[in-house]
Amino acid sequence: MEGQDPVVLLCLHLTIVLFVGRLAGHLANRLRQPAVLGELVAGMVLGALPIALLQEMRTDAGLDLMARLGVLLLLFQVGLESTVRQMLAVGAAAMRVATIGVVVPLVLGWLVARALLPQEPTAVHAFLGATLTATSVGITARVLRDMGTGQTDEARLILGAAVIDDVLGLVLLAVVTGAIASGGSVQPLDVLFISGKAIGFLALALSLGVWLAPRVMHAASRLHASGALLATGLGLCFALAWLAAVAGLAPIVGAFAAGLVLEDIHYRDFTDRGELGLEKLVAPIGELFVPVFFVLMGLRTDLTGFLTPGVPLLAFALVAVAIGGKIVAGLGAGRRMDRLAVGLGMIPRGEVGLIFASIGQGLHVAGKPVINAQTYGAVLAMVVVTTLITPPLLRWRMARLGQSA
Amino acid sequence: MEGQDPVVLLCLHLTIVLFVGRLAGHLANRLRQPAVLGELVAGMVLGALPIALLQEMRTDAGLDLMARLGVLLLLFQVGLESTVRQMLAVGAAAMRVATIGVVVPLVLGWLVARALLPQEPTAVHAFLGATLTATSVGITARVLRDMGTGQTDEARLILGAAVIDDVLGLVLLAVVTGAIASGGSVQPLDVLFISGKAIGFLALALSLGVWLAPRVMHAASRLHASGALLATGLGLCFALAWLAAVAGLAPIVGAFAAGLVLEDIHYRDFTDRGELGLEKLVAPIGELFVPVFFVLMGLRTDLTGFLTPGVPLLAFALVAVAIGGKIVAGLGAGRRMDRLAVGLGMIPRGEVGLIFASIGQGLHVAGKPVINAQTYGAVLAMVVVTTLITPPLLRWRMARLGQSA
Repeated sequence: MEGQDPVVLLCLHLTIVLFVGRLAGHLANRLRQPAVLGELVAGMVLGALPIALLQEMRTDAGLDLMARLGVLLLLFQVGLESTVRQMLAVGAAAMRVATIGVVVPLVLGWLVARALLPQEPTAVHAFLGATLTATSVGITARVLRDMGTGQTDEARLILGAAVIDDVLGLVLLAVVTGAIASGGSVQPLDVLFISGKAIGFLALALSLGVWLAPRVMHAASRLHASGALLATGLGLCFALAWLAAVAGLAPIVGAFAAGLVLEDIHYRDFTDRGELGLEKLVAPIGELFVPVFFVLMGLRTDLTGFLTPGVPLLAFALVAVAIGGKIVAGLGAGRRMDRLAVGLGMIPRGEVGLIFASIGQGLHVAGKPVINAQTYGAVLAMVVVTTLITPPLLRWRMARLGQSA
Repeated sequence: MEGQDPVVLLCLHLTIVLFVGRLAGHLANRLRQPAVLGELVAGMVLGALPIALLQEMRTDAGLDLMARLGVLLLLFQVGLESTVRQMLAVGAAAMRVATIGVVVPLVLGWLVARALLPQEPTAVHAFLGATLTATSVGITARVLRDMGTGQTDEARLILGAAVIDDVLGLVLLAVVTGAIASGGSVQPLDVLFISGKAIGFLALALSLGVWLAPRVMHAASRLHASGALLATGLGLCFALAWLAAVAGLAPIVGAFAAGLVLEDIHYRDFTDRGELGLEKLVAPIGELFVPVFFVLMGLRTDLTGFLTPGVPLLAFALVAVAIGGKIVAGLGAGRRMDRLAVGLGMIPRGEVGLIFASIGQGLHVAGKPVINAQTYGAVLAMVVVTTLITPPLLRWRMARLGQSA
């Protein structure tokens, strides 16, 4: 009767994600690894199986959308665990970590590319360096949440640095693509405009949000309607995610900012009358959506890309630079903190690196694409390796931290 | 950086739905009406505004998918409130109510259509009658949930009858379209096959589910993974929704069956160690998704369809027959129950009526479509009126019931 109902196939895919995700999380936990590693690997295993149903999942638009909502909700949850004041307390250190973590991988990546691909033009070297800059905060956020260490200074520093990272990466992308498009010259006005929009969004969202959030929540608490707390909280999350995108930033930055400006005390009107707090209300929604993001990330990893000739050596070099560069960045955290934990938390590269690489595939220098099949394979390998090694390393280091505290 | 990210527009649309939905629910509650009526009317108001952003929401595939998940989750929640045993206790009465509620509107609708459209062939009269048969259970389920009367016998009877309704409607659609396609003759084998699949699904889902649910839940409780209860419950919901669709039924029938087979006692392993129960975990997910369904339903109502010449009289007659037919069906509930409440609960027609009508637009008799613009407008009016009058009427009657109990 409803043969074309698009929800039918999504139901099947969600069933698979939910069952496989929980089983994989269970196995990972039994091996003393974070659940997110299990979900990623399970996705990769599913993706490697030659079953049409599983291959379809890669391109299911509904599942894709749920994954995107999942990472938004994850960052919103992470933001809820901290306040703007706590973030500002680690602000200077986060700025140092982010800056080092962008400059060092950029320069080292550039040099490595020049050494291994001497025949390619400078644009290729610069672009490969740029793919190494932006941290993908989803993995780290999830590990910290799973371990219950989201409220340490180290966790806040990593998240703050990852947000600044996103802004710097955005500006860098504008500079590099602008320079390539105009044959080598940088457009200072464009760079200024893009950075201005991004910084303006953050300043506005945080300052206005801090003022607005308690007032909106108080008004919502007086509504004669069930679910007003959750609707207001999620409404703020989605509104800021949209505004962040309008400002040219990743939507997750807005979702994180929304979580930061909301504090427990804002919704005491609700919790005082026995309703669940916002974190407890968002938790089950996250449990539905977040694993979709990680299982799908695993499913979409095309492992055959590594087998392209010439990829392994370049990939190995990029991985080394990607890891080393962020561990060096951790030194910016200062002596008060566990600098290695911060550096490890910054390692994962994800969608931003791949977005850089795919934009590079569309840019041409001397008639050839800046990123070809070989260099794309190497970037993909870098993303996969940095994603997979972070959960065990970070878990190991944060557990040490927990014991010494 | 992520200009084509489809989640960005969805974020904006969700923000609107969440804020408008809660405000409308608040206003409806202040006027002593169910929140769902507020959401429907708010959607209709938004849809009537000449604002491009709001018009886009009608066709946002992501929002559409969330609405479809919303109605699944709503029926899952409603199913959780009852058990298979309780449903079987009202089974015979539900069968009577469903059968009367299909036959009476079909025959009366047929006669009305013949009287008002004497120039049209019999196929048109039969088809218009058929659009009046299937109850759209979403509205009633939501009103009962909002009022906290989901566990009365009347509520179970309405829901059981609506499920049987769906099966009967499906068979009827097969008979009518088969007869039109073959020029008047009914294909008994097709009818048998279609009804067999639907009844087979229900029997299998409920009997196997009752056996399987406690075992799966017990196994899940032993997983070393957070969120195992929710993942297992939702996994079962989505799996049965998919299976229902495979059997040719509406996915909501499967979601409802999943809710029925799951009982509190199955997940005592979880709640005994202090985790929230399944109903509490699903509630916030429903609060996010369910209003999307109702606001979007309102948004998509094209009120200009009523203005087509010739529509008002036919629409008025169909509305009268649609309401009268289901109130008569309520008599099948027997003396022990509030027969008027049952009849009122069966009144809403929704997507199934519209699906019938749109299939009719594609069928031709003597070179003309079975359902033309005029008759489609009348069916649409019938859907809108039955949807809008049910919440206040049902609330009024169920409140009486609550007082006398």
